Amino acid sequence: MTIQSDPISLPKTALGTDLTGASLIGGRPVHGGHGEIAGTDPASGLTLAPSYGLVGTAEVDEAAELAWAAFGSYRKTTPAARAAFLETVADNIAALGDVLTDRVIAETGLPRGRVQGETARTTGQLRLFAGLLRTGTFHDARIDPALPDRSPLPRPDIRLRKISVGPVAVFGASNFPLAFSVAGGDTASALAAGSPVVVKAHSSHPGTSELVGRAISAAVAEHELHPGVFSLLFGGGASVGIALVSHPRIKAVGFTGSRTAGMALVDAARNRPEPIPVFAEMSSVNPVFVLPGALDTAAAELGAAWVASVSTGNGQLCTSPGLVFVPRGAPADAFTAAAADAVRQVAGAPMLSAGIRDAFDRGAGVLGDHPDVTNLAHGEAAPAVAVCGVPQLFVTDAHTFLTDETLQEEIFGPASLVVTVDGVDQMAEILAGLEGQLTVTIHSAEDEPGAQALLDEAELRAGRVLFNGWPTGVEVGHAMVHGGPFPATSNGQTTSVGALAIERFLRPVSYQNLPAGLLPAVLQDDNPLGVWRQRDGELTRDGEQTPA
Amino acid sequence: MTIQSDPISLPKTALGTDLTGASLIGGRPVHGGHGEIAGTDPASGLTLAPSYGLVGTAEVDEAAELAWAAFGSYRKTTPAARAAFLETVADNIAALGDVLTDRVIAETGLPRGRVQGETARTTGQLRLFAGLLRTGTFHDARIDPALPDRSPLPRPDIRLRKISVGPVAVFGASNFPLAFSVAGGDTASALAAGSPVVVKAHSSHPGTSELVGRAISAAVAEHELHPGVFSLLFGGGASVGIALVSHPRIKAVGFTGSRTAGMALVDAARNRPEPIPVFAEMSSVNPVFVLPGALDTAAAELGAAWVASVSTGNGQLCTSPGLVFVPRGAPADAFTAAAADAVRQVAGAPMLSAGIRDAFDRGAGVLGDHPDVTNLAHGEAAPAVAVCGVPQLFVTDAHTFLTDETLQEEIFGPASLVVTVDGVDQMAEILAGLEGQLTVTIHSAEDEPGAQALLDEAELRAGRVLFNGWPTGVEVGHAMVHGGPFPATSNGQTTSVGALAIERFLRPVSYQNLPAGLLPAVLQDDNPLGVWRQRDGELTRDGEQTPA
Repeated sequence: MTIQSDPISLPKTALGTDLTGASLIGGRPVHGGHGEIAGTDPASGLTLAPSYGLVGTAEVDEAAELAWAAFGSYRKTTPAARAAFLETVADNIAALGDVLTDRVIAETGLPRGRVQGETARTTGQLRLFAGLLRTGTFHDARIDPALPDRSPLPRPDIRLRKISVGPVAVFGASNFPLAFSVAGGDTASALAAGSPVVVKAHSSHPGTSELVGRAISAAVAEHELHPGVFSLLFGGGASVGIALVSHPRIKAVGFTGSRTAGMALVDAARNRPEPIPVFAEMSSVNPVFVLPGALDTAAAELGAAWVASVSTGNGQLCTSPGLVFVPRGAPADAFTAAAADAVRQVAGAPMLSAGIRDAFDRGAGVLGDHPDVTNLAHGEAAPAVAVCGVPQLFVTDAHTFLTDETLQEEIFGPASLVVTVDGVDQMAEILAGLEGQLTVTIHSAEDEPGAQALLDEAELRAGRVLFNGWPTGVEVGHAMVHGGPFPATSNGQTTSVGALAIERFLRPVSYQNLPAGLLPAVLQDDNPLGVWRQRDGELTRDGEQTPA
Repeated sequence: MTIQSDPISLPKTALGTDLTGASLIGGRPVHGGHGEIAGTDPASGLTLAPSYGLVGTAEVDEAAELAWAAFGSYRKTTPAARAAFLETVADNIAALGDVLTDRVIAETGLPRGRVQGETARTTGQLRLFAGLLRTGTFHDARIDPALPDRSPLPRPDIRLRKISVGPVAVFGASNFPLAFSVAGGDTASALAAGSPVVVKAHSSHPGTSELVGRAISAAVAEHELHPGVFSLLFGGGASVGIALVSHPRIKAVGFTGSRTAGMALVDAARNRPEPIPVFAEMSSVNPVFVLPGALDTAAAELGAAWVASVSTGNGQLCTSPGLVFVPRGAPADAFTAAAADAVRQVAGAPMLSAGIRDAFDRGAGVLGDHPDVTNLAHGEAAPAVAVCGVPQLFVTDAHTFLTDETLQEEIFGPASLVVTVDGVDQMAEILAGLEGQLTVTIHSAEDEPGAQALLDEAELRAGRVLFNGWPTGVEVGHAMVHGGPFPATSNGQTTSVGALAIERFLRPVSYQNLPAGLLPAVLQDDNPLGVWRQRDGELTRDGEQTPA
């Protein structure tokens, strides 16, 4: 394996608009010869230059082997060095400015404000992980000192830290072309953990992917890291993705997308000679429960606000709250009427891709054809939009919902369903029967009866429980969980957003009686990194003098 | 589902020797009607009374549904209440005294000192988790306070804690009839996490299982917990285990045993409508690398000490170091000669079961028949022992080892293999090619060249790396990892021993804008539990005054 370290092959200054259509394997542009893809502007329907040559399994192998070659040095970089690297990635992305924003808009049809906000979120989460690396809590460092005089047996010195699991494969998502894509949360947390990353770009935003990929490769070069720390592959169909997940040098997978694709990766990872973990964020309908007290005081406002949340990103958010439960009666009618009014005022807007639009139309069509579901309202047609999704509002009752499991399946896009229920007890019953969710939202008045019971059920079924708000707009912080039980994710014990996301790519290692000269810095007696550590289970930042 | 709460069905005071042969479903004795098993004394070969009636899927269903029924209240018990409960379990086990010790010896053939030590370890780990519950670090509590004035968008209040994943299925191991069985590390960590537990007893120590199961059930009753918090099932073959793992009320699995059985559970868990995590600790050969400096100074002592470690528990420990690499030459010859002398002095001893003995004899036989492996020594025959395992020492060279993958397969029992290598570089090469391990051990002189390189490889392949010691004897503390990459375990990001084991049965949940009256205690502003929490990522034990 020849590692390309020639500066020409590392586009250190190539952050401009000159898109090449190339994959980046350890910083080296590679034009794949296995077919081509190109972006499409969903607003105009026009194909966007350049074409991207698709790689095959040989390039997957090269990228994965390079990632492994980089792992030995990259995992031993200091947390401070990785923090500086992540900040350069963020700087490089921010420096792309309108070049990036315009390309994202062209490839996704997303509004400018949303794209700018998502850019800030993307750089913000890179900086969050930089900060996390500097505080050092991610090490989970622990020292159980030797007890030479313990009876009946002396206790050896045992120390624990978390280290990277190894190179990580990341699959970009269609609906967050920045924040869940090439330099999104999966990549940021994996690079923070000390894992080289091989990204398979999502085919619906290849130019965006190339721009961001080059921003990362430039940072790799600037920090003089092994070029294999980052590769970006354009590949067609499922075979390149399966080859990547199946490669023996890949040790974990981050994915955001459909349940079908996610579970295909889970199975590929299981069937390797050495199975590896897949952290797949897949599907969620994000149910909202409006208790009578909340509904009675603000039915119309809640109906309009709900539609505003569902319409964000034209319903194409993982946390889009497509399903709301209201107690039947006049306030529910007012809620529904206000929602219908709001939907009628929403213009059809571009969807991310023709495939997503087709799936949305199918899903909404099935709902519309359901004999016990009423299509109450829809948005304005937008004939000028080539790949258009028009919002659809449906209504049904609890009996229908409880007797047809398909009604709790996600329809990705601006579809929303109001379910009228008999009361709070039935809400809790329905919630207890729902699949795992990214979010469950409860609207309640102060001290409203039933809120505690719903909360109790909600926390068992979701990664995040909200009160009196809307789940769209995921904060990137230390306390965020963007995860949840299956099928929201393939691993409900983690999150793909926020500081905890780093734990997906770490594993604990114990060191017993390690000579002082071999102890990693974070476990040395005098605590040179100044991090929080557990000493016999008690948190302390103090160092210990090495016994003379 | 009728919950048996009649005191007669909860053997509150029935900790005596009156073994019943019954499963315990929510504290209620149930004699299964699907065949019978009985313990066997491997020393004498005699069958031990009583017979245990095996349950079927109906009883699995009953136990799992009871566990679910218990989950609602048990998960809401305070950490302090669960700590007190675990301590009562420990007290009840300790109170069994010789009744328990004698039964374990009869069913396993393990020496009395080992059984007493394992009893102390079992009660010790229950108490470790009690302590962990009181410190509260397991909550991983985090608060990102609201920032109402943030621009462009205000930040909501977001708080995180970890909660139980739900009821847990535990499979007792044959080789630690106490510490990895009915009240072993899996059960202790699951109960600590707030998870009800359904144990499938290992068929080779049913009486031990019943005694310990009744100790737990008595503690459940004493603390007035829902009886479904604990059930113990005796089941035949794989079908009851698969039914348990497949039951929709079970949300995670803890297992210690063979790779075949572990992966069968992994697949069953994957193929559920709602897949769940399986934490299976499976197989490890625990390689030992002796660097020249260490070998030169103490070859004979090391050879003898190695055999002592392999002979512990007659080689039937997960961490038994069955494979040692030494640089060829005169010191290696001295090491091997001392090991051979030591092996010849070890008498054959009972193995845990006839099945394990047969597998050991097969594995050792294959090694003995290998044309390039020499059977250098064996232990003394012990004709009086019915189910006897006789230590076997084998020698081969690096070339043979590198060209035959079967030589790195675990032979469970007192088999040991010396591999002579060309030098330190070849040791690192061999280590880099090994499968995942529970432990890797390095013996080195002070500042010996090559130690760092071996350590770098070792930490990538094992959950625990030791210097100048032996891996048998696993400390139960805060810094212990008893885990490692596949096939050592099915999930190398966790441990089945030590405080971190609780994380297998927890998942994080975020709460956004939760009304103060609904906040769980650990997330309330004034920090009533006094635990460490992250506030915007900074650890603090301080509470905050609620804004007036």
